[in-house]
Amino acid sequence: MTTIIRGGTIVNADRAFRGDVLCFGDKIVAVGEQLDAPANATVIDAGGQYVMPGGIDTHTHMQLPFMGTVTADDFFTGTAAGLAGGTTTIMDFVIPDPKQSLLEAYRTWRGWARKSAGDYTFHVAVTWWDESVHADMGTLVREHGVNSFKHFMAYKNAIMADDETLVKSFRRALELGAIPTVHAENGELVYQLQQELLQKGITGARAHPLSRPPEVEAEAANRAIAIAKVLGTPVYIVHVSCAESLEAITRARAKGQRVYGEALAGHLVIDDSVYASEDEDFARGHVMSPPFRGKHHQAALWQGLRGGNLHTTATDHCTFCAEQKAAGADNFTRIPNGCGGVEERMAIVWDAGVNSGTLTPSEFVRVTSTNAAQIFNMYPRKGVIEVGADADLVVWDPNGTRTISAKTQFAKGGFNVFEGRTVRGIPTHTIAAGKLVFERGDLRAEEGAGRHIDRPAFTTTQA
Amino acid sequence: MTTIIRGGTIVNADRAFRGDVLCFGDKIVAVGEQLDAPANATVIDAGGQYVMPGGIDTHTHMQLPFMGTVTADDFFTGTAAGLAGGTTTIMDFVIPDPKQSLLEAYRTWRGWARKSAGDYTFHVAVTWWDESVHADMGTLVREHGVNSFKHFMAYKNAIMADDETLVKSFRRALELGAIPTVHAENGELVYQLQQELLQKGITGARAHPLSRPPEVEAEAANRAIAIAKVLGTPVYIVHVSCAESLEAITRARAKGQRVYGEALAGHLVIDDSVYASEDEDFARGHVMSPPFRGKHHQAALWQGLRGGNLHTTATDHCTFCAEQKAAGADNFTRIPNGCGGVEERMAIVWDAGVNSGTLTPSEFVRVTSTNAAQIFNMYPRKGVIEVGADADLVVWDPNGTRTISAKTQFAKGGFNVFEGRTVRGIPTHTIAAGKLVFERGDLRAEEGAGRHIDRPAFTTTQA
Amino acid sequence: MTTIIRGGTIVNADRAFRGDVLCFGDKIVAVGEQLDAPANATVIDAGGQYVMPGGIDTHTHMQLPFMGTVTADDFFTGTAAGLAGGTTTIMDFVIPDPKQSLLEAYRTWRGWARKSAGDYTFHVAVTWWDESVHADMGTLVREHGVNSFKHFMAYKNAIMADDETLVKSFRRALELGAIPTVHAENGELVYQLQQELLQKGITGARAHPLSRPPEVEAEAANRAIAIAKVLGTPVYIVHVSCAESLEAITRARAKGQRVYGEALAGHLVIDDSVYASEDEDFARGHVMSPPFRGKHHQAALWQGLRGGNLHTTATDHCTFCAEQKAAGADNFTRIPNGCGGVEERMAIVWDAGVNSGTLTPSEFVRVTSTNAAQIFNMYPRKGVIEVGADADLVVWDPNGTRTISAKTQFAKGGFNVFEGRTVRGIPTHTIAAGKLVFERGDLRAEEGAGRHIDRPAFTTTQA
Amino acid sequence: MTTIIRGGTIVNADRAFRGDVLCFGDKIVAVGEQLDAPANATVIDAGGQYVMPGGIDTHTHMQLPFMGTVTADDFFTGTAAGLAGGTTTIMDFVIPDPKQSLLEAYRTWRGWARKSAGDYTFHVAVTWWDESVHADMGTLVREHGVNSFKHFMAYKNAIMADDETLVKSFRRALELGAIPTVHAENGELVYQLQQELLQKGITGARAHPLSRPPEVEAEAANRAIAIAKVLGTPVYIVHVSCAESLEAITRARAKGQRVYGEALAGHLVIDDSVYASEDEDFARGHVMSPPFRGKHHQAALWQGLRGGNLHTTATDHCTFCAEQKAAGADNFTRIPNGCGGVEERMAIVWDAGVNSGTLTPSEFVRVTSTNAAQIFNMYPRKGVIEVGADADLVVWDPNGTRTISAKTQFAKGGFNVFEGRTVRGIPTHTIAAGKLVFERGDLRAEEGAGRHIDRPAFTTTQA
Repeated sequence: MTTIIRGGTIVNADRAFRGDVLCFGDKIVAVGEQLDAPANATVIDAGGQYVMPGGIDTHTHMQLPFMGTVTADDFFTGTAAGLAGGTTTIMDFVIPDPKQSLLEAYRTWRGWARKSAGDYTFHVAVTWWDESVHADMGTLVREHGVNSFKHFMAYKNAIMADDETLVKSFRRALELGAIPTVHAENGELVYQLQQELLQKGITGARAHPLSRPPEVEAEAANRAIAIAKVLGTPVYIVHVSCAESLEAITRARAKGQRVYGEALAGHLVIDDSVYASEDEDFARGHVMSPPFRGKHHQAALWQGLRGGNLHTTATDHCTFCAEQKAAGADNFTRIPNGCGGVEERMAIVWDAGVNSGTLTPSEFVRVTSTNAAQIFNMYPRKGVIEVGADADLVVWDPNGTRTISAKTQFAKGGFNVFEGRTVRGIPTHTIAAGKLVFERGDLRAEEGAGRHIDRPAFTTTQA
Repeated sequence: MTTIIRGGTIVNADRAFRGDVLCFGDKIVAVGEQLDAPANATVIDAGGQYVMPGGIDTHTHMQLPFMGTVTADDFFTGTAAGLAGGTTTIMDFVIPDPKQSLLEAYRTWRGWARKSAGDYTFHVAVTWWDESVHADMGTLVREHGVNSFKHFMAYKNAIMADDETLVKSFRRALELGAIPTVHAENGELVYQLQQELLQKGITGARAHPLSRPPEVEAEAANRAIAIAKVLGTPVYIVHVSCAESLEAITRARAKGQRVYGEALAGHLVIDDSVYASEDEDFARGHVMSPPFRGKHHQAALWQGLRGGNLHTTATDHCTFCAEQKAAGADNFTRIPNGCGGVEERMAIVWDAGVNSGTLTPSEFVRVTSTNAAQIFNMYPRKGVIEVGADADLVVWDPNGTRTISAKTQFAKGGFNVFEGRTVRGIPTHTIAAGKLVFERGDLRAEEGAGRHIDRPAFTTTQA
Repeated sequence: MTTIIRGGTIVNADRAFRGDVLCFGDKIVAVGEQLDAPANATVIDAGGQYVMPGGIDTHTHMQLPFMGTVTADDFFTGTAAGLAGGTTTIMDFVIPDPKQSLLEAYRTWRGWARKSAGDYTFHVAVTWWDESVHADMGTLVREHGVNSFKHFMAYKNAIMADDETLVKSFRRALELGAIPTVHAENGELVYQLQQELLQKGITGARAHPLSRPPEVEAEAANRAIAIAKVLGTPVYIVHVSCAESLEAITRARAKGQRVYGEALAGHLVIDDSVYASEDEDFARGHVMSPPFRGKHHQAALWQGLRGGNLHTTATDHCTFCAEQKAAGADNFTRIPNGCGGVEERMAIVWDAGVNSGTLTPSEFVRVTSTNAAQIFNMYPRKGVIEVGADADLVVWDPNGTRTISAKTQFAKGGFNVFEGRTVRGIPTHTIAAGKLVFERGDLRAEEGAGRHIDRPAFTTTQA
Repeated sequence: MTTIIRGGTIVNADRAFRGDVLCFGDKIVAVGEQLDAPANATVIDAGGQYVMPGGIDTHTHMQLPFMGTVTADDFFTGTAAGLAGGTTTIMDFVIPDPKQSLLEAYRTWRGWARKSAGDYTFHVAVTWWDESVHADMGTLVREHGVNSFKHFMAYKNAIMADDETLVKSFRRALELGAIPTVHAENGELVYQLQQELLQKGITGARAHPLSRPPEVEAEAANRAIAIAKVLGTPVYIVHVSCAESLEAITRARAKGQRVYGEALAGHLVIDDSVYASEDEDFARGHVMSPPFRGKHHQAALWQGLRGGNLHTTATDHCTFCAEQKAAGADNFTRIPNGCGGVEERMAIVWDAGVNSGTLTPSEFVRVTSTNAAQIFNMYPRKGVIEVGADADLVVWDPNGTRTISAKTQFAKGGFNVFEGRTVRGIPTHTIAAGKLVFERGDLRAEEGAGRHIDRPAFTTTQA
């Protein structure tokens, strides 16, 4: 199958230029001006619009069994929603129960993911430690294309990794050429604050942010970074939501340490006033961890993306419907944590980032795909428009607008944290692995079309 | 008993002025120019020298059972050595074994301390947690004059407090009007680094600093400060030894948080080259935690004292003789941790701090006694020369010199980390509780003359 | 004349305690419990209220010829207003015209100040440079009790000091034992921004803050601090209004540099929304430099006061009536810069600072008088309640309330930036130089009763 | 002319990969594995060595009339020395005298540069201001391919730009799409310190660093950054030599400001002990501004390059022979400022940066060419190996060694600040504009072969 996108402004992380992109099979085979194309080629006229690498969402949870329920989106609906939004690759998480074999969990998730419509790859969580975990990490890296491991510093009495696990797992990752990532919140403090709030009878969703103040996140980020520094390993902080946590990253980077940070589309534009809503369903619908923050944190996150101290954008897409969320009606600690976004991320970041002049189009590409591909070793297969790369592309209309709503979204769950927001800058076409899967509102996602992306270990000459 | 010190330059934290100090019993009863004194008064002619509040060493371990042995100095020899150096009050530590009753341990230490020649008071360590600890903290504050609790974040598998203990104890301290203090080192990292070094066959004293890099200390300081911030309690960081740890304090103080830091005389002037010595006895003699650091850390600590981000000076006086230290000859993790200094602190800080122009005499008083008295609620009984204060005084000759040596010291242990250093600025007289206990090299310390200093809880109007 | 204040809670910078204060003539002659007093003594029953050192306003402009007019308050009305608010000493400014002799200007201001009802002392501005300025600085320090010099980094084409003047004057001050102070705003940037705004036709008061963004202030603060660092002199930054400027101070202090910062009562509680008012008189009434800032700056200033990076509170009291302000009706650069506050400062700082728990009463004393007295060498004559100090006292009712209004103020100008604000915590009595000058709303200020306070040069042992 | 480099590891800023590079004329025409090449092609066997974009030295002064003399290297010898070291493009400076027309000066420099052996382009200095300067800036940008303007904040009474000039020129640059650059040192402080040192009789080269302490540089960097922030323009700081100056950049970047920093090869590896030499010729040979700094500054600069707060490496190549330097034998302020390095930069940065593990090869390319090409708008013509780029290449032997010496260098001046240093990692071949100009020690530089590189103005979508 041959497709040619004609007359676009091709945007890579390093520059933008006018040209055509020719795709054959699942690869880009030519990039340049006035390219020849076979007669049978599908022609997409970009008409001067931007043509960019398909988005990589570094943080999703499809089909996740969590807090006694399972997320509304499975790997098909979730990846399909991504394609509709211009995201062609997701990075999801294998989360073994404590004591569960990492390999066994990995196989379970791989099974679930077979139905994906877009490409996917996995971070594997290290939620406990013994020799088998040490061994399984090796197997995963060497045989299964895994090069990143996740550590939850929150969720005490569940999947929280203590310092011993962090140290041992980080060191093992270094040895294997994998990168450790952390959910940075001090689980002990969260737990104690939760108990305190419940004892005081503060049980609704508005208690959620009170149990997870910025210091709780910043402490954990700082701790993970310190451990990484001592051991000499890079580290990646997922969903950086607050100024204080970003400062910990910025300090470390200023000293030359290889620390990376991820911002969620939601944290970039939504503030904590949502928890003050009288509508408990609405408030509960926004319960995720870390929570939404005060407005000045959003300004800080944008500064981080622009200044190079934050590197990727993601969503932590983890959708639950109102009934599921209602499990915590009487006790905010039982509200399943999670919000959507895989479908909206690209447009949200463009609208708030590029339209405001904060980011250039090249910087947009950097933080929506290129950096992710480089940090997690999928580059240049992903994250760039050049000959030999996967034909994952999005044609972007900078003047197109869309008003986001749960009513019109492809994702499940019936709720949207961006409800009612009108964005300017939307995808008109998404090409995934060479196929046109989305065209002006028409989603042609195909169950099972997505591939697992093997990510090799890092070698010593990479950084 | 009446004593008058005539013609000194009286130095308090807020200013210096010419005058006499009249003591009756154990109190100061008059301060001023040309005071009248009874005929039978002992007259000390200060001859223009400085007259300052007796030093408070906020951190000593006399008679401590630690790492399988007991320190060389007991409460008599240790406090006597302090008097010889101008220090009239020590703050020692009650360190219960895990599972041991705090009250029981407290009584044991009070028993040991009866022989003290100078005044003393105790921080009580919280090394574990259950309801009895919660209760005992209350009893100690309300009935025993304790208003500070210590937490070791290091010493895994021994007295290390985990985050749960820290959170619960800090919160309890807040409730009681007591201040939490921490030994800030990440015990898990230290432990893992120790194991790694031993596995590599690096077993000598030079491995000690490698197992405790600055990041290990800074991480823990930052964590303790974050916990204090979240709970709303002040916090005091003992023996801040490195720039990174000081930065954590400085950041918090810049945000208005009530964080206090202590510097040790040793850390202020000794660098880590001592561990590179060929003489293993010498290297082992310097093993303490945190270890001595590279030179730029010393500059940072002085900046901290001068800029008001560090508040007290202490010694962590904890002496072991060469035979005791030799227990770790084959394994640096078994070297009893500790060095002396209670006798030298005042002269070291004066010589390196005041002679260099870094500190004014008033600032010297602030960091050697006043701040300690205020932070730990002994003020104005201690830490100031004014009517009604304890008659704890040191007459200071800014031009007198002394060459420090284990051969001439009063303290036990046969080793001195300041060996061979000549200081300018030494005490000529020490008055403790109104008695002249040291005069130009003649130490008249009396066993049992020291009193326990009750320190009341803080009230809400204090800070 | 003898006065005794009975049964108060005496608050000094170092502590608070119950007691009486006995004043004879203009001095405090006894402090303690249950003091004897002569039968003819005036007795003030403090009834448990706070008794504190009279406030020192480090920054006022009474009777100032400025921008073509003269301020509404002269030295009598201005100092009288201060007494009504608990402020017993003002520090005003001698501001020579460029090329005018410093001594001549000094004599002029001394003449104007003779009518003062409260004590006063002067900073002298160095607005230009030649050998006569160098000489006059010496004369002022040695013969006239001046130990601080002011430098305007703003007001291009008028009194702005360029770097050459700053360097030469700072160095001269160091030589003389005087402290340089700066109004930190980059005058060149302000001028260019003003021109730009006027060219765009933005001529109203709302243009004022746009012409003086925080970076303009932070740049100048950083520059003055750098010059002071290189020359080895302390430096005092007047009216620190924004987070960025405070950060420059905080950075320097963290390195041990002796930098001091002053916050204005107005900047602590008023935000820049005042400039958006439809009422141009109201907006113009708030025109001062630096301007009022966004809310987060106020939070930063309080953190600075609490964390010890800001030291004094002042007002920049410089009142103009509406007619005077209207001179800039068509051109905001012609609005006379200045607002009042000398009467309200103490209550504003107490209400917003102590009632909120940000400051303790002792810290309140520190930032309203003690630090000022120490930094400008009036201590312990001023800034403390102790025997021998000036009998400048304020009796403070922490529960008393007052609603501030131009209608009820003693100061002139007919405008109050704190209009309508109700404060809790107000003075009931003010004693100045031993005389009861204010009692529950009854102001007994006496023209000419104020004295000039000589401030000697610093000696090398002070800091 | 066709050249093929076979079997190299091609290193770009984004990644490294095995492949061949085919050059035709002055362009790269193919990059890939096993490329076909015409029979007559010159074949260079890279043998697995690195093939990298030719270096860009962002800061040189060839043939500069300065301080009463002219530099030893002219545009031919200077660019030729660059080619020998793997640098194929230099960015030199047009420096008009105050009052001299910018265009006239530009034409003079263009004339001098015609003899260049390698490519060149010019920053134009704005050393004064009037309407003609404003106009000439426009002409230079629109008609002469200039997009960067330089401002000296040092050199009082000569080419120093005051704040008014900075503000006006920065604003004009913004309007034109050009980037302002600054030599950041506070010229007033330097001047005053110089006078002070001379008055004290400290006249030798060792006085040079004393007259330019780090604060002098940091102040100016902070000021330039503040001006850029207020005006909304990017800014580039040349020769960042110290931690304090880097901190100013890092702070601004953390807030998202577009600030770029340049490090000199000399500052990265040479410390200020050179000025303490007994050999005055040696000490004078190292006189440049900013001066070499204490060792910890070098560590900071490497952290800056690694952490992304510094972006380019350069040399400030500005050679004088011993006789010229001797002009300041009696007065250090008359020593012509400048040192060499254009020939050694690439090897110095590789040896100290890549061999130590601080930088990856891709990061090396970023800081030696790619970032420079992007910041100054020569990308992707320069700074990357891809089809269509200039055939400027260096083949790099990571194991080759060379001991640097003035005796063996190609550059003039008879002195080398890197004298005696043995580097591992050297160029074996340099290709410039498609021609092999250096091969294993054989330099084939051709006078006049270099081209002026026009650099277009930035458009609003770039950053």
